[in-house]
Amino acid sequence: MRENTARSSVLPVAPSRGRLRPLGLDEVRITGGFWGRRRHTNTTVTLGHCLDWMERVGWTGNFRAAAEGRIHRDRRGREFADSEMYKLLEAMAWAGASDDVSHDAEAAALGDVIASAQEPDGYLNTAFGHPGQQPRYSDLAWGHELYCHGHVIQAGVAQTRAAGEGELTKIARRAADHVCATFGRGGIEGVCGHPGIETALVELARLTGEQRYLDQAALFVDRRGHGTLADGEFGRAYHQDDLPVRDATVLRGHAVRALYLAAGAVDVAVETGDEDLLAAVVRQWEATVARRTYLTGGMGAHHRDESFGDDFVLPPDRAYSETCAGVASVMLSWRLLLATGEPRFADLAERTLFNVVATSPAEDGRAFFYANTLHRRQRGAVPAVDAASPRAESSLRAPWYAVSCCPTNVARTLAQLPAYLATADDHGVQLHQYADVEIATSLRGGHGIALRVRTDYPAGGSVTVRIDRSPVDRPWTVSLRVPAWTAGATAHLLDPDGTRRPVIPGTAEVTRAFRPGDEIRLELPVRPRWITADPRVDAVRGTVAVQRGPLVYCAESVDLPDGHDVDAIRVDPSAPPEDGPDGTVVTAGHLTAYDGQRDGAWPYRPLGTAPATASADRTGIVLVPYHSWANRGPSTMRVWLPAGEPDRAGPPERSAHDR
Amino acid sequence: MRENTARSSVLPVAPSRGRLRPLGLDEVRITGGFWGRRRHTNTTVTLGHCLDWMERVGWTGNFRAAAEGRIHRDRRGREFADSEMYKLLEAMAWAGASDDVSHDAEAAALGDVIASAQEPDGYLNTAFGHPGQQPRYSDLAWGHELYCHGHVIQAGVAQTRAAGEGELTKIARRAADHVCATFGRGGIEGVCGHPGIETALVELARLTGEQRYLDQAALFVDRRGHGTLADGEFGRAYHQDDLPVRDATVLRGHAVRALYLAAGAVDVAVETGDEDLLAAVVRQWEATVARRTYLTGGMGAHHRDESFGDDFVLPPDRAYSETCAGVASVMLSWRLLLATGEPRFADLAERTLFNVVATSPAEDGRAFFYANTLHRRQRGAVPAVDAASPRAESSLRAPWYAVSCCPTNVARTLAQLPAYLATADDHGVQLHQYADVEIATSLRGGHGIALRVRTDYPAGGSVTVRIDRSPVDRPWTVSLRVPAWTAGATAHLLDPDGTRRPVIPGTAEVTRAFRPGDEIRLELPVRPRWITADPRVDAVRGTVAVQRGPLVYCAESVDLPDGHDVDAIRVDPSAPPEDGPDGTVVTAGHLTAYDGQRDGAWPYRPLGTAPATASADRTGIVLVPYHSWANRGPSTMRVWLPAGEPDRAGPPERSAHDR
Repeated sequence: MRENTARSSVLPVAPSRGRLRPLGLDEVRITGGFWGRRRHTNTTVTLGHCLDWMERVGWTGNFRAAAEGRIHRDRRGREFADSEMYKLLEAMAWAGASDDVSHDAEAAALGDVIASAQEPDGYLNTAFGHPGQQPRYSDLAWGHELYCHGHVIQAGVAQTRAAGEGELTKIARRAADHVCATFGRGGIEGVCGHPGIETALVELARLTGEQRYLDQAALFVDRRGHGTLADGEFGRAYHQDDLPVRDATVLRGHAVRALYLAAGAVDVAVETGDEDLLAAVVRQWEATVARRTYLTGGMGAHHRDESFGDDFVLPPDRAYSETCAGVASVMLSWRLLLATGEPRFADLAERTLFNVVATSPAEDGRAFFYANTLHRRQRGAVPAVDAASPRAESSLRAPWYAVSCCPTNVARTLAQLPAYLATADDHGVQLHQYADVEIATSLRGGHGIALRVRTDYPAGGSVTVRIDRSPVDRPWTVSLRVPAWTAGATAHLLDPDGTRRPVIPGTAEVTRAFRPGDEIRLELPVRPRWITADPRVDAVRGTVAVQRGPLVYCAESVDLPDGHDVDAIRVDPSAPPEDGPDGTVVTAGHLTAYDGQRDGAWPYRPLGTAPATASADRTGIVLVPYHSWANRGPSTMRVWLPAGEPDRAGPPERSAHDR
Repeated sequence: MRENTARSSVLPVAPSRGRLRPLGLDEVRITGGFWGRRRHTNTTVTLGHCLDWMERVGWTGNFRAAAEGRIHRDRRGREFADSEMYKLLEAMAWAGASDDVSHDAEAAALGDVIASAQEPDGYLNTAFGHPGQQPRYSDLAWGHELYCHGHVIQAGVAQTRAAGEGELTKIARRAADHVCATFGRGGIEGVCGHPGIETALVELARLTGEQRYLDQAALFVDRRGHGTLADGEFGRAYHQDDLPVRDATVLRGHAVRALYLAAGAVDVAVETGDEDLLAAVVRQWEATVARRTYLTGGMGAHHRDESFGDDFVLPPDRAYSETCAGVASVMLSWRLLLATGEPRFADLAERTLFNVVATSPAEDGRAFFYANTLHRRQRGAVPAVDAASPRAESSLRAPWYAVSCCPTNVARTLAQLPAYLATADDHGVQLHQYADVEIATSLRGGHGIALRVRTDYPAGGSVTVRIDRSPVDRPWTVSLRVPAWTAGATAHLLDPDGTRRPVIPGTAEVTRAFRPGDEIRLELPVRPRWITADPRVDAVRGTVAVQRGPLVYCAESVDLPDGHDVDAIRVDPSAPPEDGPDGTVVTAGHLTAYDGQRDGAWPYRPLGTAPATASADRTGIVLVPYHSWANRGPSTMRVWLPAGEPDRAGPPERSAHDR
C-alpha cells in the first residue's frame, strides 16, 4: 500500500495509506440528482426532525440531568441513547461542511450540554456511573459505554475536520484518553459488547497523530474473540466474541456489530500495515457476500438477535436487513475499497446505498425503516406520528423508535456521502459511484484538476464526465467503475475524441493530457432484467426478481387492481421486463384469484391430486424501485416474484382436514 | 351438546358436556408400540431427569428458600421456574395412575416443600411478593404469577384425580381461592401475560363443582383483548391482548400463549354453554391450520417473540415450532374434538403428536428440542450435558434450558397420553388415535365393554380391534377415525364377519351386537407419498416433502455419502418414494456437488446466463422419520426437498463481484 498524502482534511475516513486516496467534502460536491434530492431533504428536514425527537423523548435532557445530578431518577431511553445525540452531531458537522445549510448553532448548544455531562476524567455516559446507577463498565456485554464513547469521538473528529477544533474536539480527546487509561494494558481486559470504539479511536489517531489511540483500537480488535464477554442467550457469536477476528471465516452474530468490528479491523490493519488482518477481513467479506447477503445488499436474516443467519438462510419475508447494517456495510466496503482499490467493494456499496440506505427514509425525510424486509404479506397499521414506535415490524416507516439508531445513522451517511463517491491516486481520479458531482483536487506534484459529472443515474445509464481544469500537457487518468450488474449486457465508453468502445465490469480508464471541455461518456445498460438466485437460497426457489441498473424493483399492492394482493402475482420470465412510465417496470404475468375465505383447508396435499384452477387473465404487472415502496399508504410488497402459469398456482383442494 | 356422565375420574380434561365423553387413565391403557416405548422412557427416565435438573439448577430450592425467608437473595431461574415443578408433579400424578412405576414418594416430598412456601392467603410464587422482591402482581405482562398458579392448580387436580385428595389438592384450592379473591369482580381488573390459569380454574371447577372457579376463568377470558396489559416491544398481539377472544379470526402472537388461551376459552364455552365463544375458537383454529401451521403440525414461525407469523410465513429453516406449542395445540384440538366430535381435530392432534411432541425428546429421554426446525443447514455444536443450555438453536437436543418448559411439558403430555386416544358416547366407543391399547368402560345403562387394539402403527397401517367384553345381544358401535392423510389413497375396513369395504377420510363405524373375540380391522395405506404445499407458502416453492402415514420424513446428512450435505439433494418427484429398510424411505434423486470454497461469488445472476453444471449421478436418497432425527450426532437436515434436475441446480457463474 502506498502512503496517502491527503489534500483534504474534511474526510470521514482518512487512512494514512492505501491503494486509493479518499477525496474530502471540500473536494467533491453533489449538485443534484438522486442523491442530491435526498441530501437536501436530509439537511433541511431530517436533522431537525432528529433533534426535535431527541428533545421530545428526553435523550437530550439526559445530558442536562447528568450535569445537574438528577440523572439516576430522570434518565430516559435505552442504554445507548447518548449515541444518537453524537451521531446527529456528526451528521450536522458533515452537512455543514458540504451543504449550504448550517447547523452550527444547534451543534454548539448541544456540545455545551454534552460537555457539562462529561466527568473530570473524561468518562461520558448518562446511563452508568452516577450515584444511584450501575457502576461504570459493570455490564460490558450490554452497557454500550465504549460504543457511546466511540460515537462521541467520531462526532468530535467530524466537527474538527469540518469546522476546526472546538468543544467537541476536547470532549472527544478526553473521552479517548479515558478509554485508553481504563482499557489499556494493565487496565480492564475487556471489550464492548457493541463494537464502534475501534473505528473511532483509529480516526482520532489519524486526526491527532497520537499513536496510543491506534494502539488501543488494535488492542480492542485483538482482545475480541477470547470470550471476555458474558455468554448469553444469543451465544458468543452475537458479540463476535466466539473467535478472534483473524481466525473468523465469515461475518456472524449481530450484523451491525459484526460490520462495525470488521471496519475497525480494516482501519487497524491499514494503519499498522497488518496484511494478514486485512486479508482475514477480505475473506470474511467474500463469504458474507456470497452466502449471507440479500439481493438488496441487505445483511441480517434473524429478527430475534438482529443477526446473520446460517449460510443461505435469507428468507425474504423475514429479512431483517437492518438499516444500520446497510450503513455499516457501506462503511466496511468503503474502507476495503480504499485499501485495495478493487471495484467489487464499490459494487456492493452501490447496491447497498440504493437499496438499503435509500430505502430507509421516507420521501419526506420524517420516517424511517428500521428493518428492510423483501416481502411484506399483510398491510400493517400506520405507525403513530406522535409516538416512538416500539417495533421494527410495521409495513410503514415510523418517525422514531425506542431503539432509534436508524434515523441518525442514515443522516450521517447521507451527510458524508460525497466522500464515498470518488478517490484519487498518483495517476488520476477514480469515479466509483455515479451522481451529479463536481470534483476538484490536485494530483501528485500539486497539479490542480477539476471535473464535473452529469447523469440521471440510476434512472438513466448515461454518465458524462466533463473536464473543467487540467494541467497542460500532463497526461492523467480518469477511471470509471463499470458496475458488476452490467455483466451479460454491454456497457460502452466514449473517449473525448468520440471513440466508442465496449467495456466490461471492473474499471474503464481514459488516460490523456485532458483539456478543459473534454468529455468522457460512460453508457451503462440500465434496462430491466430478470435475476435469479443461487439454488441454495431456498426461500426464493422458483421466483425471479427484477433489477434495473443498480436498483432492485418490487411489486407493491397499491399498483395492483383492487382486491389483489402481491401473493397473487405470477410472472412469465420468458418475457423480458420492460420500462414503464415514471421509472416503473412492467412485466407480463397473471394474477391468481385466491379465495381468502377458504379457511380450514389444510395447505399441504399429495402431489398429483388436482389443484383448483384459478382463473387469471394475462396482464401487465407494474414494479417500482424497492427504495420507493411504502410511500403510498399501507401495502403489501414483494421483491421475489413467483414464476409460473396460473393453472399451476391454485390453492390445494379442500382436504379431509377441511370438513 | 350432551351432558357427560363420566365413568372415570382419572381425566386430564373432564368437561361436563360435549359431543364425546373422554375416557380416563383407568379406562385406557397403552400396552406397547410407538407410544408405549416413549411412555416407558418418560416414566423411568425423564421424570427423574427433570427432578434431578430442578434440584441442580435450584428451582426446587426456591421453595425451600421462600419457606425459610431467604428467597430474595437465593432465588434461581426465570420468573416462571416454579411452574416446572408443578408440571413435573402433574406428570408424576398421571404416570402414577397409568404406569407401574410410582413416583408418589418424590411427589409427596415436593408437595411438602411447595406447601411450606405457600402464603397464608393462598398466594404461591417464589419470584414475587417476598421482602426484597417486587410486589405481587406488579408485572402482570411478564411476571407469570397467574400462569404459575394455573400450573399448581393443574397439578393439584391431577394428583386428586389420580390418587385422591392430598396436600396438593389443598394447595391448589387455596391458590385458586386466592386468585378469585384477588382478580374477581371488584379486584384487580387484569389478566396474566401468559394464559394458563383459565384451563386450570375450569378443571378445578369440574373437580370440585365450585362455580366461582369457572366464573373467574370466564372473567379472565372476557377481560383479555382490552389492552389491560402494558404494550411492549412485541405489541399487544403477543399477549393476545389486541382483540377480545370472541372477535379474533386467527391465532396470533406468542404461540403457546395463544393456544393455551384458546384451550381455556373452549373450556369456558363448554361449561357455560357459550356456543358463540366455541364457534369463535373453531374459526381461529381453522384459519390457523390453513395458513399458519407447518407440515409437522408445528406452530410458530418467529424466533424473536416465539410467535405466529403473518399468514403463510412458514420458513422451514427458521421454523420455531416450539415443543410447548405442539403440546398446547394437542390440548386445544382435544378439547375441540370432545366438544364437536369432528375428526379433523384428531387429525391435527395425530400429526402434532407424531411430528412435534414425539420429536422433542431424545431417544434416551434425557434431552429435548425446545424448537423444532424443519431445515437445519449447519451442524451445530453438541450441547453441554452438564449445563443448562441458554439457547434453543442447537442442532441437537439439550438436557435442560434456562427456559426449560419443554421437558416437563412433554413429560406430562406423554403421561396423560392414554386419555387422548379414545372416547365414548351413548352409542359406543370412538378410536381417534391408533396404538396398542386396552380399553374398558361401560356404556349407557352400565353395560360394560372392553376391547383391545393391536397395531404397529405408524410403521404399519393395519389396526386390529378385538372385542373382549360386550353386553349380550345389545348392539353398540365402534367408530374408527380414517385419517385425513389417507385422502387420495384407499383405506379399508374389515367387519367381524370378514366383509371388506373401502372407507374415506372421516369416521368409519361398525355397529352390531358384538361378541367377545369379534375383530374389526382397519387397513390404512401407509406407503410414502410426495406432499406439496399451497403456493402461498413461498418458502417451500419448488420442493416436495415425504409423508408416510402420519409421519413426516426428512433427509439427514448422516445418511448421505461423506462430504455431502442436505443442501445437495435434488429429488425426482416423478418417481414415487419407496419403503426402505428399518422404517426409512428411499427416493430417487441427485446430489449436486457444490464447491463450498466458492466464496466471493455474488449469489444472484441474470436469468439466462449459463449456470455452472455440477456433475451428479442419480442415486437413492434415504429419508428417516422426522421425529427420529438428530439422534446420531450433529447433522444437517431438511424436510422439504428441492425437486429438479442436477444441471439446473448448479451455483451461478462467478460474476463480476467475484473478481
